[in-house]
Amino acid sequence: MVELITSREKLVNYLESSQLSRGLVPTMGNLHQGHLTLIKESINENDLTVVTIFVNPKQFGPNEDFDKYPRTLEADLDAIRSIDKALDKNVIVFAPEKIEDIYPEGFSSTISVHGFDQILCAKDRPGHFDGVTTVVYILFNLIKARRAYFGLKDFQQTLIIRKMVKDLMIPIEIKLVEIVRDSNGLALSSRNKYLDLKQKEEALTLTKSIKKLKDSLLKSGIKDTIKMKDDILEDKRFVYLDILDANNLHPLDDRSKEAVIAGAIMIGTTRLIDNTLVSLNVR
Amino acid sequence: MVELITSREKLVNYLESSQLSRGLVPTMGNLHQGHLTLIKESINENDLTVVTIFVNPKQFGPNEDFDKYPRTLEADLDAIRSIDKALDKNVIVFAPEKIEDIYPEGFSSTISVHGFDQILCAKDRPGHFDGVTTVVYILFNLIKARRAYFGLKDFQQTLIIRKMVKDLMIPIEIKLVEIVRDSNGLALSSRNKYLDLKQKEEALTLTKSIKKLKDSLLKSGIKDTIKMKDDILEDKRFVYLDILDANNLHPLDDRSKEAVIAGAIMIGTTRLIDNTLVSLNVR
Repeated sequence: MVELITSREKLVNYLESSQLSRGLVPTMGNLHQGHLTLIKESINENDLTVVTIFVNPKQFGPNEDFDKYPRTLEADLDAIRSIDKALDKNVIVFAPEKIEDIYPEGFSSTISVHGFDQILCAKDRPGHFDGVTTVVYILFNLIKARRAYFGLKDFQQTLIIRKMVKDLMIPIEIKLVEIVRDSNGLALSSRNKYLDLKQKEEALTLTKSIKKLKDSLLKSGIKDTIKMKDDILEDKRFVYLDILDANNLHPLDDRSKEAVIAGAIMIGTTRLIDNTLVSLNVR
Repeated sequence: MVELITSREKLVNYLESSQLSRGLVPTMGNLHQGHLTLIKESINENDLTVVTIFVNPKQFGPNEDFDKYPRTLEADLDAIRSIDKALDKNVIVFAPEKIEDIYPEGFSSTISVHGFDQILCAKDRPGHFDGVTTVVYILFNLIKARRAYFGLKDFQQTLIIRKMVKDLMIPIEIKLVEIVRDSNGLALSSRNKYLDLKQKEEALTLTKSIKKLKDSLLKSGIKDTIKMKDDILEDKRFVYLDILDANNLHPLDDRSKEAVIAGAIMIGTTRLIDNTLVSLNVR
């Protein structure tokens, strides 16, 4: 029988088949409470959770911290084992010993999502997001997960991954989880390990600046807030600081429903990022 | 239970699950016996065959024949219905009416396979193969096929697609099918429609030159054959003509086991390609 189908919807309906309930939490290890929150979410929502631990060379620039990035597999396993529900549910930690298990010899393919190239982290980390999308895609394929979990701290990353999934019709659901902060408000990051106590205090400059801009945006509107941002950027420790439409990272306009205020700062040789979302419904 | 897995092989074994038997034959329509051979292969090997018909704008350059490319859906359906076994087996023809069914609004992702950029068709068709890999990948995802069928006439395309599948661990088997020729030896192509009888005769220049090089390669070796190729290239209708390692499109060397002799020629405004494989075991 030959049947003609002329719309995607009908085709998808025709092909629909059941999927196993697998959750993927891709990480580079050195797990903190931010990661553990992702893992708990996945355990709650899936029969099997796969946590991958892979420090992905393709997303580091030549002068970045690939070599010194903290690798703490035993502690990571302990942390996962300490999650209550990990006892009842199946959790796999995939930590490949060989890089060829992710990038086979002669590997030469790239997945690129265009349109975010000169924005936020893409500006001073050329190629970074191509490295992220490529490895994340490979993990999607390897795990064949139904859901994958990402933290909102890497906001631009979550946007680019969602775009990739939509564009390329990758059959996976992307779940986003709130930023987890320490008691002072500093966003948790594996790179916080590089900081001494005084630097951790110093790093709050970023968090506080973002908070200040958020308050200003809600109270005084975009024009004053952009001026305030430009003043803050006089502090040369900032790599960037910007107020953008959270939907597409374009400048805010009248149709914008949600803003993201995102920044990066250098504390010594450590590059840290943070962001917050601001609902604009109330304007 | 938390289980640590440290190799891809073990992970894949763990995750392995059954797949439906679906074959995909991606085409741009205007089906000839070459396409029908692919479809028959798929019908033989799968419970369900999905033939896609989509003239993919992303693989055409700005000065190429996207607009005039032949669109013959009714004849294509008749041709598929005339395949004997299509009566017993399920065959779907997916011919989307709307381009958004393949590229949703705002689409901005690309899959690139590097390493073949200045070779054969990539030279005079910049971006062509990115367009091919991107649409083929989307079709893979849409159909969730176990096997996909491609003709060896587009030899470089088959190599790039196989590389993409290997690099990105796309769970699909790529099946290659021999070139189908008319009684004079001309490789079947939808673009042959553009030729009048005299031009079809003229187009045999390409086929005959490839044949001559193959005979020379087997009889006289690579050095003489490259000289012969350079002589043939004096004919400015040739876009390219080359003798390369069929495994990687590098120049032939002592380890080469198979050569591909591939060429492109302009007949009037029509660009035609052809190739042949030469086993080098006998040297």
